[in-house]
Amino acid sequence: MRIVIVGGVAGGMSAATRLRRLDEDAEIVVLERSGHVSFANCGLPYHVGGVIEERSALLLQTPQSLGARFGLDVRVGREAVALDRASRTLRVREVATGAEEELGYDVLILSPGATPVRPPVPGMERALVLRDVEDTDEVVAAVAGARSAVVVGGGFIGVEVAENLVHRGLDVALVEATGQIMAPLDPEMVEPVHARLRERGVDLRLGSAVTAVGERTVSLADGTELPADVVLAAVGVRPDSTLARAAGLETGPRGGIVVDEHLRTSDPHVFAVGDAVEKRDALDGSPSLVALANTANLQGRLAADVIAGLDVADRPVLGTSVVGVFGLTLASTGWSEKRLRAAGRAYRAIHTHPANHAGYYPGAEGMALKLLVDPETDAILGAQGVGGAGVDKRIDVIATAITGGLRTADLAELELAYSPLYGSAKDPVNMLGYIDRNHRDGLVETIQWHELQDRLDAGAVLLDVRTPAEHEAMPIPGGINIELDRLRERLGELPEGELVVHCQAGLRGYLAARVLAQHGRRAVNLDGGYLTWAARPGRDEDETTAAGDDTDRGSSAG
Amino acid sequence: MRIVIVGGVAGGMSAATRLRRLDEDAEIVVLERSGHVSFANCGLPYHVGGVIEERSALLLQTPQSLGARFGLDVRVGREAVALDRASRTLRVREVATGAEEELGYDVLILSPGATPVRPPVPGMERALVLRDVEDTDEVVAAVAGARSAVVVGGGFIGVEVAENLVHRGLDVALVEATGQIMAPLDPEMVEPVHARLRERGVDLRLGSAVTAVGERTVSLADGTELPADVVLAAVGVRPDSTLARAAGLETGPRGGIVVDEHLRTSDPHVFAVGDAVEKRDALDGSPSLVALANTANLQGRLAADVIAGLDVADRPVLGTSVVGVFGLTLASTGWSEKRLRAAGRAYRAIHTHPANHAGYYPGAEGMALKLLVDPETDAILGAQGVGGAGVDKRIDVIATAITGGLRTADLAELELAYSPLYGSAKDPVNMLGYIDRNHRDGLVETIQWHELQDRLDAGAVLLDVRTPAEHEAMPIPGGINIELDRLRERLGELPEGELVVHCQAGLRGYLAARVLAQHGRRAVNLDGGYLTWAARPGRDEDETTAAGDDTDRGSSAG
Repeated sequence: MRIVIVGGVAGGMSAATRLRRLDEDAEIVVLERSGHVSFANCGLPYHVGGVIEERSALLLQTPQSLGARFGLDVRVGREAVALDRASRTLRVREVATGAEEELGYDVLILSPGATPVRPPVPGMERALVLRDVEDTDEVVAAVAGARSAVVVGGGFIGVEVAENLVHRGLDVALVEATGQIMAPLDPEMVEPVHARLRERGVDLRLGSAVTAVGERTVSLADGTELPADVVLAAVGVRPDSTLARAAGLETGPRGGIVVDEHLRTSDPHVFAVGDAVEKRDALDGSPSLVALANTANLQGRLAADVIAGLDVADRPVLGTSVVGVFGLTLASTGWSEKRLRAAGRAYRAIHTHPANHAGYYPGAEGMALKLLVDPETDAILGAQGVGGAGVDKRIDVIATAITGGLRTADLAELELAYSPLYGSAKDPVNMLGYIDRNHRDGLVETIQWHELQDRLDAGAVLLDVRTPAEHEAMPIPGGINIELDRLRERLGELPEGELVVHCQAGLRGYLAARVLAQHGRRAVNLDGGYLTWAARPGRDEDETTAAGDDTDRGSSAG
Repeated sequence: MRIVIVGGVAGGMSAATRLRRLDEDAEIVVLERSGHVSFANCGLPYHVGGVIEERSALLLQTPQSLGARFGLDVRVGREAVALDRASRTLRVREVATGAEEELGYDVLILSPGATPVRPPVPGMERALVLRDVEDTDEVVAAVAGARSAVVVGGGFIGVEVAENLVHRGLDVALVEATGQIMAPLDPEMVEPVHARLRERGVDLRLGSAVTAVGERTVSLADGTELPADVVLAAVGVRPDSTLARAAGLETGPRGGIVVDEHLRTSDPHVFAVGDAVEKRDALDGSPSLVALANTANLQGRLAADVIAGLDVADRPVLGTSVVGVFGLTLASTGWSEKRLRAAGRAYRAIHTHPANHAGYYPGAEGMALKLLVDPETDAILGAQGVGGAGVDKRIDVIATAITGGLRTADLAELELAYSPLYGSAKDPVNMLGYIDRNHRDGLVETIQWHELQDRLDAGAVLLDVRTPAEHEAMPIPGGINIELDRLRERLGELPEGELVVHCQAGLRGYLAARVLAQHGRRAVNLDGGYLTWAARPGRDEDETTAAGDDTDRGSSAG
């Protein structure tokens, strides 16, 4: 049996090596368009920045090493240009010479990945992209001697490349057409990353459309000309389904190859895996494009298992992701609030601002966490985190909880490894569960940062229960101030009507709301407190956002 | 209604503050024997070492601050010495004066914690313990001017104190009666911690019984006299159930107070929480003593919820734990292999030696992970990890997976946040799932390090499939060497009979076993490879254990 695999990176090579482990006798041919297989595609931006110094570190395997270890016939610089499904034959072009030949298969696995999108803008053809080792070589060469760079697009690659070009000493502008980078996340979770990019000297241009790419400039719709010795296009990728489509394989509404839960395309002899295929969303089952290496690897392995007759099935995707930006971590799993709102789904949002470990142990780093919950079922719909150490851990725990079908309230009871070096006796994830229980049990009602103005316009009074010093240093305009520890004795001073209570991070506001409710007052708590409000998009950049809170003092010694 | 709480640290104070949030009108009295409430008990060893410089950092709250914020009546230096359940009255002694008074309650919550055990050895009464702030002051005072210290007992506290006394510049011996520290974990997972302690100058005495504590010495059973300006007893704790027992409340087989799932004792007006109560084990439901801060906090809150009429129930415990030792992390959840063996339960064990993030990104740190699996149901029975950064994250993810009822094979499909800075495209947790699937599907058979000698004695041949250079530098005695990449061509050189294959960490051994099996040879893989074998207890201390592996090269680019 001959199995031919198109694409020799994550999904394709996972399929190839797994197939060999399952079948010592099969003939396995891997075709790779670029000059390299099994390269570290997620590491490419870091080689541009010199963080990964040696180019050779990106090259995890060679055709020779894969031949020796796995008996694979790996052919680089070979592009599959046509697929004749009737005769089970590929037409393969040698990239260097243009010479073509036919290659028959018994089973075909397509793992072509995704193609960078270039915006249809004059001059954009001179923009570089970053998809493979050859692209990386081009970027590294272009950067040598350059003084300025413009990165177009604020997704994963754009942000990683912008940081790395700063590491190379260039003046870097990052141009993003929408109002925020990292589009799938909610704006108040991304704002700290905007701030960090600016702190490190990136000229961040949000809501800016590129109108032209010149010789050494990039023109924006507002008339700005940005200096640009180097231009890098990173506005996104689309599934590379050209070959599949031309061969009449079914593609889906998002442009990806359609596969069933066994990774089989509409042709039973053809499988497809990785960035080129449409996945099923874990929340609503809708077609989803998730271009992530772990999913590609898993699918490659599963396709091999199916071919070998094992009983496996592909899983739906949460789209868990993480990106590091100048030491800040931004991570996410499941749906965002804006996606839920756009879909018209009911949700409740919870924001917290915990530290990664006990505050009394030196070196604690802050983070913001956001959880989205189904108010009917208490299911976890999504989570986002931004901050220092430990963000990735909490998102991983929540992603695992979602996969395990845990309800949000169950997060309170998770037994997570605690010592003051690693967490808190009530871990940030536990706290999300505790807060959710308070909502579920009707102990508190909250409003979100984007709902505050409407409430105040409708006549509610904003009550800051932080200390007078905090109130003065970091005010939300229009609020009155009675600190929590004197609230009981000063209840008589409160004006009539609905109260919106807030503190720094949300805990004291919750405590105050409990006091007020038990004294017959209607009070809602501003979710996430001042810190979440201060991270709203479009805020004055001079506002203070760095201050901590005494969130956990009082009950969580350990 | 008056609610009296005995014990003002984790569980007790969680109960008190939660009660106030649920009931603004209740009278809440907290009695604390020591002079401090809500202190950071898990931080005490680090103040001894000066890592937490300020003593005040340990004192998270005062009676005054708790009075102002929560309206609590907090009485420190007050010990509950007798409980008359018929009249619902406590006898309370003022520690400083001995004066006693009666205190009535409507509801009583016992949260007295656990008491350090002192081994019955002559002179042991002069050993210090570390349980509260006063103990800490004593240790800090004793350490000033001291040159040598002996810590008796290698559990959490003993290990943390030993490290911190080294930070203080003392010559430190750590004496442990059994063959390993951190008794609940398996020996090969603890061995790297033994090595680290010795590297940092701790005189580690395993299998050593203390026979006497002298003026400035500690005598061991083998006749050794250890210099000991300071002696600290940390051989464990027992539930502080004296008051409960004297009052006729039911206690359990492990000596803790018996409570139902609502934290109610055998008296419906008396609740008990925290280290003093017996929990139910998550795996088999047996009574379990788990003295951990997160469980104490959770129980305190749940008891308050029950009292306030909310519908909650206590959960069983996994006993997830973590300890840091000179930069090394040792973490665990669920059952160990030795506990499973002692209970006669079937299991399979999986050892891996991954890096915390992509090896091609600078700064990757290695770890050892161990997973224990029910071979019938594929349930996750337990996990342990030891190493650098990222160990706590993996144990937390696995603890969450257990709580969510995920099977081991499901770990392969978990979507964990991946970028080269944070993990691998196949995360270490995913790899455990992949390996488990290979076992489940009969693709490989492994043996454990402690089964190797028996196999070899029975005539099996040990085959090292690493490179000749690795074989020579780090041999397992008696093995022959054919490197994996030449195995297919050299099959004819192999002797007859069963083969035990091994490599450095287990992956290449698995690949070789697949090749051999498909060529009709019976081959079992040494689980965890050389690295796990080299961490076996009693090994020659000069053996090399630090070498890495190329575990993930080949199929998990990303």
